[in-house]
Amino acid sequence: MIRRLAVIGVGLIGGSLARALREAGEVREVVGCGRSRENLEKAMEHGVIDSCTHDISEAVKGADTVFLAIPLGAMKDAFAAMQGHLAPGTVITDGGSCKGSVVADARAVFGEMPAKLVPGHPIAGTERNGVEASFAALYRNRRVILTPMEETDPQAVARVRRMWEACGAEVSEMSVEHHDEVLAATSHLPHMLAFGLVDMLARMKENDEIFRYAAGGFRDFTRIASSNPVMWRDICVANGPALSRMLAAFADEMNGLAQTIAEGDEEHLLEVFSRAKVARDGFVDGLDDDSTT
Amino acid sequence: MIRRLAVIGVGLIGGSLARALREAGEVREVVGCGRSRENLEKAMEHGVIDSCTHDISEAVKGADTVFLAIPLGAMKDAFAAMQGHLAPGTVITDGGSCKGSVVADARAVFGEMPAKLVPGHPIAGTERNGVEASFAALYRNRRVILTPMEETDPQAVARVRRMWEACGAEVSEMSVEHHDEVLAATSHLPHMLAFGLVDMLARMKENDEIFRYAAGGFRDFTRIASSNPVMWRDICVANGPALSRMLAAFADEMNGLAQTIAEGDEEHLLEVFSRAKVARDGFVDGLDDDSTT
Repeated sequence: MIRRLAVIGVGLIGGSLARALREAGEVREVVGCGRSRENLEKAMEHGVIDSCTHDISEAVKGADTVFLAIPLGAMKDAFAAMQGHLAPGTVITDGGSCKGSVVADARAVFGEMPAKLVPGHPIAGTERNGVEASFAALYRNRRVILTPMEETDPQAVARVRRMWEACGAEVSEMSVEHHDEVLAATSHLPHMLAFGLVDMLARMKENDEIFRYAAGGFRDFTRIASSNPVMWRDICVANGPALSRMLAAFADEMNGLAQTIAEGDEEHLLEVFSRAKVARDGFVDGLDDDSTT
Repeated sequence: MIRRLAVIGVGLIGGSLARALREAGEVREVVGCGRSRENLEKAMEHGVIDSCTHDISEAVKGADTVFLAIPLGAMKDAFAAMQGHLAPGTVITDGGSCKGSVVADARAVFGEMPAKLVPGHPIAGTERNGVEASFAALYRNRRVILTPMEETDPQAVARVRRMWEACGAEVSEMSVEHHDEVLAATSHLPHMLAFGLVDMLARMKENDEIFRYAAGGFRDFTRIASSNPVMWRDICVANGPALSRMLAAFADEMNGLAQTIAEGDEEHLLEVFSRAKVARDGFVDGLDDDSTT
């Protein structure tokens, strides 16, 4: 049971954690912290948080658990703002999509990796933002990755694990480096392709018409291009080396495929598409595919 | 009112047309033609077709309307098989995703573009195949593009237009070349990216693990990689020049983005992502977005 949870950034991710813990009866009090008065007021109205402040040092006072659900570019300043205001036992965790930069920011601010800081990442979300997009079931049957360091207190890890399990999530642990590679492949790269495709088409002369003839497949494919641009700028900066490497490798693949198409190598095309279909169908079988099409 | 409709290829596309016309009371009799006995029997059971044959020359006999819903690579043989068996007034149309190759195949077989052949393309579908995936509402509020030629009989165009409008579709006309450019951008290119991404990840050593940590965004993004590999091989061959050109241009874009990320050019990243988000949100506002997330 969390006595007092400070949620820094009460949007989709932070708001959904608060809602899920409340629903599970696993939190007594939630303090919300953010920059937008309007969003905090909505969070109060919807009963997601009990009180709110714009001041991080205020928000973390007396909290036994702090959850950072803010863009990666804001982590360092947030660590600096809470430094000296945390109780000795306070456990800190975050929801950032890249863990290397969070660890680096923490080290830069605190001078070392704090034993009570457990870097984490719930693999969940939609392309929508703000507390009104949040819902208690967001983390149900989703995976949460924790990337504890050598310095991390195992009891802090256990507490963060329990917190996520209370939300219905399945928690696993891996190294920071491995997390950042896996996420570059499965999340960051697809987002680049979706943003890049929509941007390329939007810059074409006849883009009005082009979008008019796009169908359902295009809508699904580009859904993630509606994600928060600031968040994604920060992820690109934070996971720059792994992501730019993977994106360049993908560009090579696509040049190869363009060549294969230009040459009309039917056998090779069929091989690629068949292998992809098998892999994708297998991946979906391993998930709850809630799609109806 | 269609007296007798021959559907060549009774899958998602062909089956849905038959179902929609039946529901609208716009067809008296439907003859199904295909290679799979099992699929044709299912089509009979579900009442999608009234009779069936494996023989195209048989299927088109006495039909006033013929709809080809087969992979592009099968069009030429299908035209050859129906040659000499069509009644003089029979209107032929198709559902191929590329129109240039259909016109070329027709010319190769018939020696000229038949006046009663109206190349068409319903912009609708799911990644599923077979008659059991078909449904009457597939074309409702979807766009259908017709690409009549100089040689095409305007009355044949009018009949095909009425047929699609009876299914609830919105019909427009454009040139073959323009159609193939627009579809390369909005459909063929995204499919290449989805197939290519899944294939690249599937070939990574740790692919089991990689897919395990993929989330909902990845599922949506890669849905189209579950599409029929043979159909897509044929589309690549049929629309090779436009598609390979566009794919190579996209690879250049992604190399540029990889460079921007490696350099940490935050301003440029934010500009690209913001522009894409605005375009994508605008595109969705122009559609019925039936997504709940």
